Amino acid sequence: MNMSYEKSAADTAREKGSRAYNFSPGPAMLPLEVLEEVHERFLDFQGMGASVLEISHRSGEFMAMASEVSQRIRSLMGVPPEYRILFCHGGGHMQFSAVPLNLMGLKPGRLGLYVDTGNFSRAAIQDAEQFGHVRVIASSADTGYDRIPRIEMTQLDPDASYLHLTSNNTAHGTQWFDFPEHTPLAMVADMTSDIISRPVDVSKFGLIYAGAQKNLGVPGTSVVIVREDLLGHALGHTPSILDFALLAEQDSLNNTPANFTIWVMNLVCRWVEQQGGLEVMQQRAEERARLLYDVIDNGGFYRGYAAHDHRSLMNVCFTLSDESLLDGFLAQARERGLIALKGHPTRGGVRASLYNAMPLEGVRALAEFMRDFAGRNG
Amino acid sequence: MNMSYEKSAADTAREKGSRAYNFSPGPAMLPLEVLEEVHERFLDFQGMGASVLEISHRSGEFMAMASEVSQRIRSLMGVPPEYRILFCHGGGHMQFSAVPLNLMGLKPGRLGLYVDTGNFSRAAIQDAEQFGHVRVIASSADTGYDRIPRIEMTQLDPDASYLHLTSNNTAHGTQWFDFPEHTPLAMVADMTSDIISRPVDVSKFGLIYAGAQKNLGVPGTSVVIVREDLLGHALGHTPSILDFALLAEQDSLNNTPANFTIWVMNLVCRWVEQQGGLEVMQQRAEERARLLYDVIDNGGFYRGYAAHDHRSLMNVCFTLSDESLLDGFLAQARERGLIALKGHPTRGGVRASLYNAMPLEGVRALAEFMRDFAGRNG
Repeated sequence: MNMSYEKSAADTAREKGSRAYNFSPGPAMLPLEVLEEVHERFLDFQGMGASVLEISHRSGEFMAMASEVSQRIRSLMGVPPEYRILFCHGGGHMQFSAVPLNLMGLKPGRLGLYVDTGNFSRAAIQDAEQFGHVRVIASSADTGYDRIPRIEMTQLDPDASYLHLTSNNTAHGTQWFDFPEHTPLAMVADMTSDIISRPVDVSKFGLIYAGAQKNLGVPGTSVVIVREDLLGHALGHTPSILDFALLAEQDSLNNTPANFTIWVMNLVCRWVEQQGGLEVMQQRAEERARLLYDVIDNGGFYRGYAAHDHRSLMNVCFTLSDESLLDGFLAQARERGLIALKGHPTRGGVRASLYNAMPLEGVRALAEFMRDFAGRNG
Repeated sequence: MNMSYEKSAADTAREKGSRAYNFSPGPAMLPLEVLEEVHERFLDFQGMGASVLEISHRSGEFMAMASEVSQRIRSLMGVPPEYRILFCHGGGHMQFSAVPLNLMGLKPGRLGLYVDTGNFSRAAIQDAEQFGHVRVIASSADTGYDRIPRIEMTQLDPDASYLHLTSNNTAHGTQWFDFPEHTPLAMVADMTSDIISRPVDVSKFGLIYAGAQKNLGVPGTSVVIVREDLLGHALGHTPSILDFALLAEQDSLNNTPANFTIWVMNLVCRWVEQQGGLEVMQQRAEERARLLYDVIDNGGFYRGYAAHDHRSLMNVCFTLSDESLLDGFLAQARERGLIALKGHPTRGGVRASLYNAMPLEGVRALAEFMRDFAGRNG
């Protein structure tokens, strides 16, 4: 399982023509080693004579596994002991409601501060408005969400319950690199699209959440990392299954969890450990992204969406200077086994999503194709 | 795939000693044919060069599959055209909140009528109390939840928003066989533990919901079958991802669905079709349950929990007249590959869950073991 990055099992499968380089923004490519282990161990979980899909979430075997994934996340991310790691139904979008339901009540004014960096921020804002007051303290809407807006300390109203931001913006290809420091209120980050892709100082945050379907595995569950002192303030009309204090009390086993998602997450986190952890993930992410941004920056054939210093390492979003060539670009890429490159509907163009599982070889193949396509059509 | 019930692939695997008879109440045994198909098709979905886990829920391939499972459920259950079939995050327990959030607003009094038939009814009642008024119109608590209580028409207050019942009670081993007729308000049923195990007249109900982890496959999603005229009354503080009208508008693709769960559900529903549909499921359920109830009724060694006419076909719950023998019973059963028979914590004793996927041979093996154990210890 401890294969080198340069020549992984995924590369081998690709050479055999059996596996595409899948640039899907999510659900996204998984490490082939993880897929193969799921496949191999699928019919019999730990010698129980049953698949992991068929066993009780209250069995010792399942509970040990759920505890293991929690420990792996704690260790990979360096989560301090005063934080709880919870598994919640429903993906990142469910958290757009669950976060205000759990945190608005922290202060009497029921005010959430939001930074608007694109479509997912806006969806989070829209959902939060049902549960309290929302103040958008910064937005990059007027420049087409091409950057992360500046935040002034004076905007961080200490009477607000929390500050919410989206650490990576898949549709627009921007990413936060300098999170606000010393905020006088709980900072909440939606890290759905870049969790465990780089080291992050968890202690800066009151709460981090992420749907599982990008860097953590497959959809059906979100991970919530929350500082214990923020628990216990849920609004009266919080569905019990979304109440973080109740989830913390029962180790997230308040009802049947999405067992398969938890299992895959455990294998994905172990794979990240085996690869060397989050520093290695970040190095690889930088290397992958640079390959594509270099092509975009040279020659003028392609045009990136994001401002230079705000460019995402996870989602490289660009278009062709001559947009009439776009359909041909996507079709020819697909023929070469470079799939799911179509941009987000609100932006159009091309989006190459480069999560942890994307091998460098896949990005090299895409960069080569981009140069080749430009040469033939430039 | 069209194997006879008497000698299925599951039986063959059992003969080879590779697969237990798994009586887990949920997550529960899956048809071996389904497990094998998942296994076989796991690494490459429809020739896309990627697993079903890795492809966008907005790809044509995934959307076609999601639409297929919806059609299969409609066809199997005979769901009339004026009902929508939705997929919602979070299992049955999430619906304990989602149902009142969506339906309490149907009438100005925000009143839900509930029938209390055990632990899951009680959990549904407790969650509903956060969102409106709850009136428990009938309960079998005073006889230890050994039966389905009688409901009088006069109790069905037409000013209530809905009537809620639990069609099968896994912990207590009871099941509804005669649903109320001509109710003057929307009847809602939690069918988590007996959906697609028997034909049901859907038109009697306003809304049916079920977590997927018993007869429908694996956890992570619930199915909601709702009459269209009940949509559009969600309370103001309904999380958007739980708003049935919004889900109906976007064919349940408002955010990333639990893709694996949807895929397995499609294969499970196809398997039920291939076996002959819900009439065949009911015949088999009756045959399975009879084998165990016959042993319980004869000899006095075992003692069933449920009153005779209310006995569940899905969960046969009983204990040993001499309860000091219980641990030995469970241990010896496990040695024979008859696993997950321990009763619900609130009831103790033994629980044999016999969902659609349980082969008759498994129940025969359990019945034989029960007779044998009684002979040796009676």
